[in-house]
Amino acid sequence: MSAHWLAVSVPIAASIWIALICALLALAGAFYLIRMVVRCSPGNEKMRRVAGAIEEGAKAYLNRQLLSVSIIAVIIFFLLGFTRDFFTAFGFVIGATCSMAAGYIGMRVAVISNSRVAQVAASSKEGAARISFNGGAVTGLLVVGLGLLSVGIFFLLGEQFFGREKAISSLVGLGLGASLISVFARLGGGIYTKAADVGADLVGKLESHWEEDDPRNPATIADNVGDNVGDCAGMAADVFETYAISIIGTILVGFLTLTETPQAVIYPFLLAGISVLSAIVGIYYVNKRHADPASVLTQGVVVSSLVSAVLYLPATLILFPATFNIGGQTHTPIQVYLATLIGLAMTGVIVVITNYYTSKKFAPVKEIAQASETGHATNIIAGLAVGQRATALPVIFIVLAILLSYSAASLYGVAVAVTSMLSTAGIIISLDSFGPITDNAGGVAVMSGMPEETRQVTDSLDAIGNTTKAVTKGYAIASAGLAALVLFGSYVAELRAHFGATESSGVNSADFSLSRPEVLIGLFIGGLLPFLFSSFSMKAVGKAAGAVVREVRRQLAKKPGIVNGTEQPEYGACVDIVTKAALHEMIVPALLPVIFVVVAALLGPLVLGGLLIGTIVTGLFLAISMTSGGAAWDNAKKFIEEGNLGGKGSFAHQASVTGDTVGDPYKDTAGPAINPVIKVANILAILIIPIVFH
Amino acid sequence: MSAHWLAVSVPIAASIWIALICALLALAGAFYLIRMVVRCSPGNEKMRRVAGAIEEGAKAYLNRQLLSVSIIAVIIFFLLGFTRDFFTAFGFVIGATCSMAAGYIGMRVAVISNSRVAQVAASSKEGAARISFNGGAVTGLLVVGLGLLSVGIFFLLGEQFFGREKAISSLVGLGLGASLISVFARLGGGIYTKAADVGADLVGKLESHWEEDDPRNPATIADNVGDNVGDCAGMAADVFETYAISIIGTILVGFLTLTETPQAVIYPFLLAGISVLSAIVGIYYVNKRHADPASVLTQGVVVSSLVSAVLYLPATLILFPATFNIGGQTHTPIQVYLATLIGLAMTGVIVVITNYYTSKKFAPVKEIAQASETGHATNIIAGLAVGQRATALPVIFIVLAILLSYSAASLYGVAVAVTSMLSTAGIIISLDSFGPITDNAGGVAVMSGMPEETRQVTDSLDAIGNTTKAVTKGYAIASAGLAALVLFGSYVAELRAHFGATESSGVNSADFSLSRPEVLIGLFIGGLLPFLFSSFSMKAVGKAAGAVVREVRRQLAKKPGIVNGTEQPEYGACVDIVTKAALHEMIVPALLPVIFVVVAALLGPLVLGGLLIGTIVTGLFLAISMTSGGAAWDNAKKFIEEGNLGGKGSFAHQASVTGDTVGDPYKDTAGPAINPVIKVANILAILIIPIVFH
Repeated sequence: MSAHWLAVSVPIAASIWIALICALLALAGAFYLIRMVVRCSPGNEKMRRVAGAIEEGAKAYLNRQLLSVSIIAVIIFFLLGFTRDFFTAFGFVIGATCSMAAGYIGMRVAVISNSRVAQVAASSKEGAARISFNGGAVTGLLVVGLGLLSVGIFFLLGEQFFGREKAISSLVGLGLGASLISVFARLGGGIYTKAADVGADLVGKLESHWEEDDPRNPATIADNVGDNVGDCAGMAADVFETYAISIIGTILVGFLTLTETPQAVIYPFLLAGISVLSAIVGIYYVNKRHADPASVLTQGVVVSSLVSAVLYLPATLILFPATFNIGGQTHTPIQVYLATLIGLAMTGVIVVITNYYTSKKFAPVKEIAQASETGHATNIIAGLAVGQRATALPVIFIVLAILLSYSAASLYGVAVAVTSMLSTAGIIISLDSFGPITDNAGGVAVMSGMPEETRQVTDSLDAIGNTTKAVTKGYAIASAGLAALVLFGSYVAELRAHFGATESSGVNSADFSLSRPEVLIGLFIGGLLPFLFSSFSMKAVGKAAGAVVREVRRQLAKKPGIVNGTEQPEYGACVDIVTKAALHEMIVPALLPVIFVVVAALLGPLVLGGLLIGTIVTGLFLAISMTSGGAAWDNAKKFIEEGNLGGKGSFAHQASVTGDTVGDPYKDTAGPAINPVIKVANILAILIIPIVFH
Repeated sequence: MSAHWLAVSVPIAASIWIALICALLALAGAFYLIRMVVRCSPGNEKMRRVAGAIEEGAKAYLNRQLLSVSIIAVIIFFLLGFTRDFFTAFGFVIGATCSMAAGYIGMRVAVISNSRVAQVAASSKEGAARISFNGGAVTGLLVVGLGLLSVGIFFLLGEQFFGREKAISSLVGLGLGASLISVFARLGGGIYTKAADVGADLVGKLESHWEEDDPRNPATIADNVGDNVGDCAGMAADVFETYAISIIGTILVGFLTLTETPQAVIYPFLLAGISVLSAIVGIYYVNKRHADPASVLTQGVVVSSLVSAVLYLPATLILFPATFNIGGQTHTPIQVYLATLIGLAMTGVIVVITNYYTSKKFAPVKEIAQASETGHATNIIAGLAVGQRATALPVIFIVLAILLSYSAASLYGVAVAVTSMLSTAGIIISLDSFGPITDNAGGVAVMSGMPEETRQVTDSLDAIGNTTKAVTKGYAIASAGLAALVLFGSYVAELRAHFGATESSGVNSADFSLSRPEVLIGLFIGGLLPFLFSSFSMKAVGKAAGAVVREVRRQLAKKPGIVNGTEQPEYGACVDIVTKAALHEMIVPALLPVIFVVVAALLGPLVLGGLLIGTIVTGLFLAISMTSGGAAWDNAKKFIEEGNLGGKGSFAHQASVTGDTVGDPYKDTAGPAINPVIKVANILAILIIPIVFH
């Protein structure tokens, strides 16, 4: 094997360095875009003041989160160090730091973009769309750049000092670091954004009859901060984690199942490197093309995917030998390449499907809107039904993708397909962050009293942002589910390696049989996790929103001049309260996956294995139904507000507002926060194999 | 083995005849109770007219359902006959006929009881409670009596003519017959009852501001018929199916895994026979005990369970040899007896847990009521969260029950625990049917203009009925899930037997590994089934309710005198429309499990196996969260109507009405209809093994 190793080591070494150079290119691109955004005019003094308040709130939240995360990270660092080893613990710190950095910088830039978008919107819709997109693209490039760089450098370091096997097994620590930030950002951010939103609406719209973003509402800045915290930083950390663990999972699966083909371990780096290039091409395309913003954004994703599809072919053919073995069967590079195409296709398919179920243009949203005519209850029933139905097509295509990519190259094929699907993360995250930026730009425009036309431009961009936000949620959950499946494959492979894969040890892959009670029990316990988690996180939103309501009432009682504008509300107090409440209320749900995994591990490796799959299965359905249902409710309201079925103020509109409010914690807290739960359970399971099972 | 066979054949033969005698006793008991109910006074002419209209509507629905079922049954009969064999097809007819008969007769008696309960309620609450209970007990006794009798006689016939192996494998046909009726009764009945209810409320309460059961509402009779169709006949068929398949599943598992212990095959008959006796004792106890009806009913279940627990011990010790083999390990009768105790305990545990989550007395319902104070949306969010949370304890106890009963006597232990849990079906069904009878008695009292006090008595009984209805739903879903798990065990065992359990055939139990893509794909497809089914059935309710609304509006337009009482509404027309609509709208969701099973079977036995477990896992969570959430919404409304949080007419009350309406299709259509879906998928899978896999 060592001669073979030498023969292939040159392209292998080259591949990983090429990937790292690409990662640096992504960072360079991000900083170029930051400069571009910063150079735009931040508008007049009033706009700058509003933007400044949002910026301050965002910083306050991020700093407090950083503090909480740091404390927990130190504990986990030592736990990992003493129970496993300090190199894995070091990986954990790298993963957490890079994920946090991507979210932190990305969100700061998004916030900086707000007032600049509002300023440009006064003169050019296209220009405003471009700044919004570029502000978001910073996060996109940071996610893929820092993700690839951290995994790559950590891998090289590990290989240098401890050898390849140790380097690979320690990568899981890095994954856990990304998971920690992901849970914080998704769950804490989700609670923050909806507590602020619901709280602001409850006192603002219902009690004081103020419009959205009314500057007299003490919670309005917190509401705007929430958009960034939840949609921008939350999504970035979530996809960063999925991106990192899909690379790590592919490396693990490649290492454990393609033992004679060391290229398999390096291939995911090459894929990720290429996808950075295609993300940059996509971003360039969006900047240069002059057309309707909505279609330009879609074209950007298509262009980016096409570039990947073209470049993957030579890369795969050059890296892999003409034939190689997987589990005793001969495979060819073309089969691996097919798996990458399946992954790219999945991005497109999921985007189209999610769009169908959540866009105002199609039947499902119209169905909910029509059901609103007979009242609140029928609106809710229709929304719940649409959400449940919206799981069908994504799951069918996930099943197809598994079937095809597995038949192409076994579990490694599935892993490659997932990595390839995640390779579009750069441009997808850009689209997602577009949403909160345009939303906040609208907020800045209203609060700083800009002319009505500006608001119309930012509103039309906000509508596009709503679609991209909904669509990227579908992408995030589908990819998280698939990546978790790869991790489960790694868990099984690691377990076999750990027990020496002997029949007598009582644990081998064949033992994960559905006819064993341990596995069934695990499936049920695992299936429970997303349901319980979702219930607790919705309750957390309610409690945190209550804290906001009490604070706003307190301010209005203390300073009655706020109502007629003679006194200034203390925005900071609301920001502070919702920051504390979000971080406090997330404790119980955040502990759930840890408790579940530990309990299952104590019941044995088979129960734990069942738990992982159980969590993926019910988690996938629950997350898709909640995010799609929630977005559909949201757009059903918007559909009515456009003047359909009686328009604003009608009975149908009231019912649709109810649906929208129910949809808020559904689509922005509980639903998307299931993604990190699925992944963190699988990462933890792999990590504790050597600790718990002897 | 034949000498051994002779040695044990005497107690075996005795056991099955004892069981059949018990079954006949149940039927005798049922007819005694029918006579008792019929002999009571049906009240004055006005009451008889109202009761007659309900009776007519119920008959109309049952007859039309009988027609539809018969057509489908004939098709399935020939399909089964030609693809498998005509003895199995004959079993199918027996299962369907007995299930239908139990539901048909039980519902007729329930309807007959209505006016009699109303009449007695005028003088005695206790007397009214007793008639309601006895009316319901007819269904309970018929379910266990006909269930045991049909399985027993069919088994004896098969053994006589075709030998034991064939007799046992043909039993699955009988299970499919019960499944067919169960799907019709649960799904068709669920759509019927909620379409009538929602339709009657939409025009009655919202458009015309009539109270519940206002005789001017043309849909009011349909609404009352619906209570019987959904709660009485639907639950009876559902539990009949679970009861039958738990006996059949235990026989199958005993036959396939305890090959040297023929007693294992007969034991479930003995358990079922004993449980008939304890049901009769329980019913007798409820009739003789004078105390608060609510606590007497609970005591009845406890007494019945205790009798079973006592009698099971000698029966188990006498039937089984001192030691016997399961999968190479020695077991004792006491271990089997422990499994029966676990099953009995499960009934109690599930009843207590469901009661906690759905009763007005405890925190979850109060939480929803409090959330109603801030509006429709917060009421809905709280209800959804409670429903999701309500899955935790039942699933944890199901996991515990599997763990303990499996460790007691392997898969056979689980099967015995399920059969034992189902042995309380007789008294549980009596409690369940208590609900629609008291509800209808209230309807008769209002529509026939009886004094206010009568209504107060029926209302207080109705409140008890609401609790028993909710609690028995928890029992139905938990037992259905467990019974389906036993069927899955039978599927695996049958598959091994079919393929000769050779490694080379590529199918053995070890192959159902979670690390095989076929199994994972199956899990996802299976997990989708309950979500899609639930979505379609909620939509079906909406469509059928729309048909009711249109018919009521048509009548009010044609006969304006209905409003001031000068013209008589055509109740029959509404009954007819909702009957047709329910049977029409159930076609698509009813076909779903068949399509899913056939598609999975074409993808191979491993995909099909994965599908079965996937359906059980998500189905269990979805059904529990929907039925518990729905009942909690219902009782949160009742809690407010009792004068709490502002009482009737308050803002909180309006919000709680929204929650109650959302809960209607949740708890009475989609949620409980998931039970037969889970079971029918597993039954079908076993049936098509010899047809599809070669």
